[in-house]
Amino acid sequence: MTCTVTLLTDFGTVDGFVGAMKGVILSLAPDARLVDLGHELPPHDVRAGAWALREAAPYFPPGTIHVAVVDPGVGSARRPLLLRAAGQLLVGPDNGLLSLAARRCGGACEGWVLDASELHRPQPSATFHGRDIFAAVAGHLARGLAPERAGTPAREWIELAAPRAVRRADGSWRGCVVHVDRFGNLITNLEAAELAAASPAGGWCVALAGAAAGRACRALGPLRTTFADVAPGEWLAYLGSSGLLEIAVREGSASASGAGLGAEVEVRPC
Amino acid sequence: MTCTVTLLTDFGTVDGFVGAMKGVILSLAPDARLVDLGHELPPHDVRAGAWALREAAPYFPPGTIHVAVVDPGVGSARRPLLLRAAGQLLVGPDNGLLSLAARRCGGACEGWVLDASELHRPQPSATFHGRDIFAAVAGHLARGLAPERAGTPAREWIELAAPRAVRRADGSWRGCVVHVDRFGNLITNLEAAELAAASPAGGWCVALAGAAAGRACRALGPLRTTFADVAPGEWLAYLGSSGLLEIAVREGSASASGAGLGAEVEVRPC
Amino acid sequence: MTCTVTLLTDFGTVDGFVGAMKGVILSLAPDARLVDLGHELPPHDVRAGAWALREAAPYFPPGTIHVAVVDPGVGSARRPLLLRAAGQLLVGPDNGLLSLAARRCGGACEGWVLDASELHRPQPSATFHGRDIFAAVAGHLARGLAPERAGTPAREWIELAAPRAVRRADGSWRGCVVHVDRFGNLITNLEAAELAAASPAGGWCVALAGAAAGRACRALGPLRTTFADVAPGEWLAYLGSSGLLEIAVREGSASASGAGLGAEVEVRPC
Repeated sequence: MTCTVTLLTDFGTVDGFVGAMKGVILSLAPDARLVDLGHELPPHDVRAGAWALREAAPYFPPGTIHVAVVDPGVGSARRPLLLRAAGQLLVGPDNGLLSLAARRCGGACEGWVLDASELHRPQPSATFHGRDIFAAVAGHLARGLAPERAGTPAREWIELAAPRAVRRADGSWRGCVVHVDRFGNLITNLEAAELAAASPAGGWCVALAGAAAGRACRALGPLRTTFADVAPGEWLAYLGSSGLLEIAVREGSASASGAGLGAEVEVRPC
Repeated sequence: MTCTVTLLTDFGTVDGFVGAMKGVILSLAPDARLVDLGHELPPHDVRAGAWALREAAPYFPPGTIHVAVVDPGVGSARRPLLLRAAGQLLVGPDNGLLSLAARRCGGACEGWVLDASELHRPQPSATFHGRDIFAAVAGHLARGLAPERAGTPAREWIELAAPRAVRRADGSWRGCVVHVDRFGNLITNLEAAELAAASPAGGWCVALAGAAAGRACRALGPLRTTFADVAPGEWLAYLGSSGLLEIAVREGSASASGAGLGAEVEVRPC
Repeated sequence: MTCTVTLLTDFGTVDGFVGAMKGVILSLAPDARLVDLGHELPPHDVRAGAWALREAAPYFPPGTIHVAVVDPGVGSARRPLLLRAAGQLLVGPDNGLLSLAARRCGGACEGWVLDASELHRPQPSATFHGRDIFAAVAGHLARGLAPERAGTPAREWIELAAPRAVRRADGSWRGCVVHVDRFGNLITNLEAAELAAASPAGGWCVALAGAAAGRACRALGPLRTTFADVAPGEWLAYLGSSGLLEIAVREGSASASGAGLGAEVEVRPC
């Protein structure tokens, strides 16, 4: 059975870094199938990487190995980590990068510190663990190494802070923007399932507040189903494909208005 | 036999959208081979996506499944579509995206509306059919589903308008720029085969008119064979690798001059 | 045994060029595994492409076929080339693009001019040898063609100039920046192995001189091991993952200061 290894990095593809990682994996596991998740993450942006991994990893077959590298602390005391959640194997630095995906995969999550140095490349560099540790360990896993043999069990690891939306006494919700996608859509931490479970008779209406205090609120009206429910250039709020409330401008960019990460979002009965 | 599934989108690779599609395909068809055509199409630019698919799809072995998603109308009444042309299977929204490739593959083209909802992911989202419909159907096709079972036969589908070059009474041709590539080269709708068949004794000479009325014409001289036929920084016209007349600046960018999509091009006996 | 074919180009992925190459390879070698090294090289930048190939190719298993296309001279007298070094097969234009990788792979290097036209696509275009010659030859190699049958032995090929660092009479070294990576790190031609072999008692100290004459020197202090050895925003010099001295700004960009390709670097006993 062919083992799949995905790769997600902030390395770009211009310098050969990703190619070197792929070569290391295939040298150890000649039958592995390599799948790019993406390499154009903003440099050093651990949160952005964690989001992308969270959105992609759960859809792969159990047993898939995901190598993710956004690693500003490379060579420091931060630990190399392997997590297993719902059968997905996540390999990367212990800086929170793997944590959102592990939580979203669900179930019990097990972790190992990748301290079995015989699995690393000989004399690993201090600045490219993507090649010398993470790709090498992924290669061993792809050829059948049990996660238990990749290192020492870890009892805890760094979890990215994930602010939760709050339900207020008057029945309204207050949350915030937790991701801005390529199209400028604003993804919030308001859970579609929770909103649907408590939907008022007249439905929910949504408003966006600027991240900066004092900025006027933008009323977005009732929840819509999809972009085509409003005219091109108009704003809408809808329950998005990640199971979260999203805010967008049809055929435009909501983030171009200046609203971005952390902007406050209110949901009230209409 | 391993089935190949190509992917072409305007999703970028930063948000995990493409990764989710790949996971869905591999979950249904663990042996599929995934091949990226590209994910950096300009957002919502159906014409650009149709061009890229047209340039790539015909070169794959028959039986290849091409999933293409540039889908500003996602969730609206626009239909999900499957086309089969010369053995290539094209999966994507019925908004013209698949039409140029289908025509270029040639032969009879058959179509199906992807309305067999048991092939979609359960409770498909209204905003991410790439994952919930197109990738899912592609996964089923990759594991052997016959196209005939993917939905209801379609009698027609949206075809992108493709302006034809015109031959005038005096033997000259008038066409226009239909694509600008990454290098700034201008690809026109003047067919190399037609120009070659009617080549005058002294050969063809080419001129570019600005898209804006009143802009002066730029004479480009006789057809060249390749870039090296002129000095660096000079303009040239040549019969390009797509079988169309192209206009370029050697080691420079023709589009940087301001000429772009729709700019008029004249071809006359020298 | 599945044969791996890597692809590295300056084509971007928006126009379908890379997709066409992949289709040609799979049509000839349906079992080949395609691996992207990257397609966003700066247009026409042969040096950048040669660097990326040098950084990636040596890590692949012997027998891997690497197709690299940065080809401003396409269609001119420049020759199509195949090199074999340490079991890696390198396919591309004879303009220096393959030369750094061949040297880094090490061992004897053999070359062939790809003049066996029956291996090309019929009537190859003059402007897209990536598809019509290089991908086609790679497809034949992937299905088992011996390199000796791909063309005529070549006795020499174009080697990119690679300036060597100089050791001066006083024991200091003078080198220069030979690559700037995506993070703005400056990679020099000062070899880690040579510096380590001759390390003075007090260690080496590094200074960067601007490329422009008269610009003041920037003292970077002693060699560090990794980024975390200095505070965010501070400069450091370290022996990098390519076996070369590098200069960086922690969580910042050294190249943003204006230092770039060719900038002079001095290494002296501290």
